[in-house]
Amino acid sequence: MKIVILGAGNLAWHLAPFLRKNGHEIVAVYSRTKFSAVALANKVKAIPIDKIEDIPSNADIYIVALQDKAVRSVLKSLKFIPNCIAHTSGSVSISVFPKQFKNTGVFYPLQTFSKTRKVNLNEVPFLLESSNLKTKKILSSLANSISTNVHFITSDKRKKIHLAAVFANNFVNHLYSIASEILKESKLPFDLLKPLILETAGKILEDSPEKMQTGPARRNDQEIIKSHLQLLKGQKNRKAIYSLLNASIIDKFKVKAK
Amino acid sequence: MKIVILGAGNLAWHLAPFLRKNGHEIVAVYSRTKFSAVALANKVKAIPIDKIEDIPSNADIYIVALQDKAVRSVLKSLKFIPNCIAHTSGSVSISVFPKQFKNTGVFYPLQTFSKTRKVNLNEVPFLLESSNLKTKKILSSLANSISTNVHFITSDKRKKIHLAAVFANNFVNHLYSIASEILKESKLPFDLLKPLILETAGKILEDSPEKMQTGPARRNDQEIIKSHLQLLKGQKNRKAIYSLLNASIIDKFKVKAK
Repeated sequence: MKIVILGAGNLAWHLAPFLRKNGHEIVAVYSRTKFSAVALANKVKAIPIDKIEDIPSNADIYIVALQDKAVRSVLKSLKFIPNCIAHTSGSVSISVFPKQFKNTGVFYPLQTFSKTRKVNLNEVPFLLESSNLKTKKILSSLANSISTNVHFITSDKRKKIHLAAVFANNFVNHLYSIASEILKESKLPFDLLKPLILETAGKILEDSPEKMQTGPARRNDQEIIKSHLQLLKGQKNRKAIYSLLNASIIDKFKVKAK
Repeated sequence: MKIVILGAGNLAWHLAPFLRKNGHEIVAVYSRTKFSAVALANKVKAIPIDKIEDIPSNADIYIVALQDKAVRSVLKSLKFIPNCIAHTSGSVSISVFPKQFKNTGVFYPLQTFSKTRKVNLNEVPFLLESSNLKTKKILSSLANSISTNVHFITSDKRKKIHLAAVFANNFVNHLYSIASEILKESKLPFDLLKPLILETAGKILEDSPEKMQTGPARRNDQEIIKSHLQLLKGQKNRKAIYSLLNASIIDKFKVKAK
């Protein structure tokens, strides 16, 4: 397919080359930042575009990989009705598209992307949604050409998945940050925790996280919990997070205090 | 070395066979639960023991892999002074040993263990502590015979590491649980989140978690945050956890609300 990519952020940076590698043609890359448009366009032999009015109108599909906030305004500024257009956001509804657009949809890869780290898109779940059968076929064909993990999901369910992803990705990463700071303050290297972090994630492949839960809160071991709170004395944010997550685990398993 | 293992829980279950595989002899396995003692002893061709007074006194080293709560009472009940003894707990001080014991230490593998899942102990950080030079040499030799990641660390620093591990392992796993429940309630499979969870963990190998932070809180995107809080309406625990971690990320990065 002939594809135009709108956006040159982390997702576009991974998606565009991967589409090209799998036989698609990237016609143009739009970003309001010229430098970003050029950088990604060069990577995928496309035309860089930094003015919305210059976006070519003849592509088979337009993929909107912009920040959530920018999606609506860029869509409004498009000077033509695209053959088919889909956004890539977890939390933006399919109803975001202007009414005159007919073939609209969602093309949401459930993964976290950084520019520097390679991700295997083959295994990434692509969560799709479409306004009609024609779009459904186009998005399905495009997603299946790059991933073995393709699902059609409604906007409501996609929002729930996005919320779950905030817990499993954003909040988890923030806990990594806190752990890393605790070590740093004792002049200990974060490397010490890396095998544990990888194994904690790896374990969910074996059984449900509920069954994998361990630790002082799981056993309701008040002696250790008290000593941890002592270590966190005066650290308001951390202590609040410790207390709340600790209580939530205790509440979940309802083990009597030892 | 001739080793006696006290305990037959998750850690002992992995450690004993790995020590044996690396040329050590497991003389005996003690557990107050006969069934557990027999199961692990069979695995490592050792004598199963379920009465403290039957523990042989002639081993080179005794490894106490019991639950934190049981360590002190079992140590008190030992009928002899061991040649060398070390416990495996992250949060128990080296001062837990009875005064008459001379060669005492800590042999703490910083990892999470489940009976069913194989862990590569080679790469697990072993955090050691010793009461004297003789013990230091024994523990160092034992740890280096099974792992390439061996460190001597004081009890105080070990406690900080254990606290950090609670954030990076126990609390992270609890967030996986919450994410899994959110999906289950919408009849969505937890499998959808697995690539994201593995990648979130994998990313910390590239750069600090601070730099890897993404998501609505990182951008202070109040529109999405509001819609998430709306989805969490009436769910007291989850909403509190969402709000607190969200605020903590916003506070950390101090991005102006969009």
